[in-house]
Amino acid sequence: MLTQKETATLEFSRKDERIAALLELVEKIDDLKSLSDLGEWDQNTQLPDGGGQTRGNQMATIQGVMHDYTTNPRLGQALDDLRERVTGAEYTDADRGLVYQCSRLYEQATKLPRALVEEMARTTANSFEAWRRARERNDFASFVSWLSRTVELQREVADHFGYEETRYDALLDLYEPGMTVRKLDTLFAPVREVSATLLKRIQQSGKAVDDSCLAGDFDTEKQVNLSKQLLVGMGYDFNRGAIAVSPHPFTSGISSPFDVRLTVHPDRHFIQASIMAAIHEGGHAVYEQGSSASLARTPAAGGVSMGVHESQSRLWENAIGRSEAFWRGQYATVREAFPQHFASVDATAFARALNRVRPSLIRCEADEVTYNLHIIIRYELERELINGTVAIESLPRLWNAKYREYLGIEPERDSHGVLQDIHWTSGFGYFPSYTLGNLYGAQIYATLRQKFADFDERLSGGDTAFVLNWLRDNMYVFGSIYMPEELMKRVTGAKPDPQFFVRYLTGKFERIYGL
Amino acid sequence: MLTQKETATLEFSRKDERIAALLELVEKIDDLKSLSDLGEWDQNTQLPDGGGQTRGNQMATIQGVMHDYTTNPRLGQALDDLRERVTGAEYTDADRGLVYQCSRLYEQATKLPRALVEEMARTTANSFEAWRRARERNDFASFVSWLSRTVELQREVADHFGYEETRYDALLDLYEPGMTVRKLDTLFAPVREVSATLLKRIQQSGKAVDDSCLAGDFDTEKQVNLSKQLLVGMGYDFNRGAIAVSPHPFTSGISSPFDVRLTVHPDRHFIQASIMAAIHEGGHAVYEQGSSASLARTPAAGGVSMGVHESQSRLWENAIGRSEAFWRGQYATVREAFPQHFASVDATAFARALNRVRPSLIRCEADEVTYNLHIIIRYELERELINGTVAIESLPRLWNAKYREYLGIEPERDSHGVLQDIHWTSGFGYFPSYTLGNLYGAQIYATLRQKFADFDERLSGGDTAFVLNWLRDNMYVFGSIYMPEELMKRVTGAKPDPQFFVRYLTGKFERIYGL
Repeated sequence: MLTQKETATLEFSRKDERIAALLELVEKIDDLKSLSDLGEWDQNTQLPDGGGQTRGNQMATIQGVMHDYTTNPRLGQALDDLRERVTGAEYTDADRGLVYQCSRLYEQATKLPRALVEEMARTTANSFEAWRRARERNDFASFVSWLSRTVELQREVADHFGYEETRYDALLDLYEPGMTVRKLDTLFAPVREVSATLLKRIQQSGKAVDDSCLAGDFDTEKQVNLSKQLLVGMGYDFNRGAIAVSPHPFTSGISSPFDVRLTVHPDRHFIQASIMAAIHEGGHAVYEQGSSASLARTPAAGGVSMGVHESQSRLWENAIGRSEAFWRGQYATVREAFPQHFASVDATAFARALNRVRPSLIRCEADEVTYNLHIIIRYELERELINGTVAIESLPRLWNAKYREYLGIEPERDSHGVLQDIHWTSGFGYFPSYTLGNLYGAQIYATLRQKFADFDERLSGGDTAFVLNWLRDNMYVFGSIYMPEELMKRVTGAKPDPQFFVRYLTGKFERIYGL
Repeated sequence: MLTQKETATLEFSRKDERIAALLELVEKIDDLKSLSDLGEWDQNTQLPDGGGQTRGNQMATIQGVMHDYTTNPRLGQALDDLRERVTGAEYTDADRGLVYQCSRLYEQATKLPRALVEEMARTTANSFEAWRRARERNDFASFVSWLSRTVELQREVADHFGYEETRYDALLDLYEPGMTVRKLDTLFAPVREVSATLLKRIQQSGKAVDDSCLAGDFDTEKQVNLSKQLLVGMGYDFNRGAIAVSPHPFTSGISSPFDVRLTVHPDRHFIQASIMAAIHEGGHAVYEQGSSASLARTPAAGGVSMGVHESQSRLWENAIGRSEAFWRGQYATVREAFPQHFASVDATAFARALNRVRPSLIRCEADEVTYNLHIIIRYELERELINGTVAIESLPRLWNAKYREYLGIEPERDSHGVLQDIHWTSGFGYFPSYTLGNLYGAQIYATLRQKFADFDERLSGGDTAFVLNWLRDNMYVFGSIYMPEELMKRVTGAKPDPQFFVRYLTGKFERIYGL
């Protein structure tokens, strides 16, 4: 439960004429963003093939309108009127968060010419269609021209925003305010180290985790229903959400906290994919659904950064969703969905199977030990793509070589390699958020375990509400009014520190593999 | 096949700088309309309950933006530059249609203040939610305030547009250019006459049509699949469309001809509802999908008026979709969907069952003889609502009294009476289009039968493509570049004439009932 004082910090000072003027401008932008998000959701889940091209035009147009609205000098003026003033005690934290987030939007928008914004939207829509077909047909060559165009446009974006050291820093900042290659390299070094070390120790131990119970023939419609039930189990609210199937799972905060949807992509022969995607996207979604309703229709609702967002998807997916305690509480649902298949598998065996460490080709299905190596490969490649030293045509070769180097395996088809992810149809700089998310998530998880001495017992008993309630009251409800570092301090009492993840990963996999 | 000359009439003169300037403005408006339509489609098919209120805000905002764009003085100037000039031989029929349709939009928009447009969008979204709940709970009282507000707003709209005789004329004109109460009364008189006479002759004949084969227990998912197959059978293109379930069936030309979707609402116990809704909405949809691609992203694509639109839904639904010849060709699909149920029912019996005349409470399920009486009731009530002589609270009483008078029956629940239709959540003046559609449709049907001496034989053999191809080449392809009266002359060689319908209805039901 929030105290009265905390509730007050979540309300905008609507009676203040400056705040009211700002809200009037930004609520409309947020409404348009909702319809733009709906257009994207639809494109991924339902749009007929024939509608692809005109949808590209529609997205370009609405992005253009949003750009006009976001670059409205009246918005600049409203923000100027508030920037100093809002630090005063008569304003709330919500007001300050609103002004900060709106200023960020305004600056990002005014730095980009409208023609570039429209061109990016059009390219994204077309690139998505090209990628979808290229992936289906294992035809990287047909995607090259769109990917080249996206790289060119992203470089232009970076140049407009400016940077101190490398172009890529400008793109990183879009997803994680203040992040740079230099900082990332420091944060990621212990992650690479612990991943490589643990992988080696596990491989040398000769010990194995049996995950054969996750393979079989699983009706995809039943998998979607199972996803629904698991989402209900973790507290996702279907009265403010929906689930659909798309080529790549994603969550869309169409209008947080009131309309937050997610997708899964069931694999008929491997049930882990849809189960873990549901919990991962569910993590994103409960974070968005947890924003205070008072922040709705503004950029102060929803997650504060991509890294913090991924911290919630990874916390729910890995720390909770791959724990034995969680499955002791939830496994009945899986068994009921596929009773014959799981008749002789118990919760302990099922949870253990979800933790098999095995270098694999597909990021989405990777285990916790190798996952960050997938990210580091993408991070290194996209950093080079943007900084200009890599030819697009050579990407499949470089991709495969890095997989050989870091994971000891190599894809035979680009569909399972460089074409697997949707991300490069729209932009660069996002991938590092996943690993940042693992770092933040491990730190928050450590706090949760500290707050609840009976953490495992409660999960084992089927209770997840205590986790969601604590996260909602201490983190989600604030939407994006506190920046990542401040939020981490409020939630965990400390700045982001990669050692939480190092300890978490080592402890967990030493236990599982008896190292 | 179109001749080269006909193809030329369908192309805009994009090299003409005035046409190019106009297109640049209207294509963006059309893109926004597509996203607004998508918002509505989503609201009816998928939006979670919790998203209703913010969706209302989103719709209000995008309507407001569209209103700004449509009232842009540059658009007025572009139209002024073209209005006289476009009549010249160097311009095409598509150019002329574009200028006409854009002028209509521009005038409609400039006559309405922006605040009124936004208020209407907000009221529509909220009224829809209120109606949905009121219908579920059979609670007309809870809908009264929203309906009152809609009536007030529609009166304001009429006053802004102006009219010569009655306020309601201004609203009629929105759906059917040039239509008035005076004209409608003349067109509708023979319809009322033939409906009443036929109903009396049928009831007095003592003869019956057995439709018991349409009742039973029909899995709703299978019904949706059957709808899909029937739509494929009539030539609806799923590569440019989609089907979903909604409380009231409708078609949305989100981006004609590339993205045209429809919904059905299966009744578990009465299969006729979903079958006829699929064919009805399919008629709307193939019309929208038939527009020349050269007209896309402009108001010259898609149907020309609501009456002409309904002519296609009613032509496909009734003249074709309730004929024995059609079902000789398509019945196998129904039988395969529900083999046990239809084991002992043949195509003749099935088609005959679809033509049972029986006064009923639900318009959507009404037979062809009584259907127009449902419309005339709504027409008379909404005309009075707008012209101001009826209190909203008395609507259920008036509704029930008219049903007693015209059809001899009366609903026991408002859910089956005054609350059954979605239309009054958004506006007034649409209902007469259904009966106009029946008139136009019968006239076009007479032309089709004249063009194809072997019409019934072809349908019986499972061929529907010849109908769709003829309609596409002679009517659909022109989108809305020709006004209803001119289009009717091009397609049928004559102006709209209610006697085609009188002859069609009388001939058909004398045959079926052996009168």
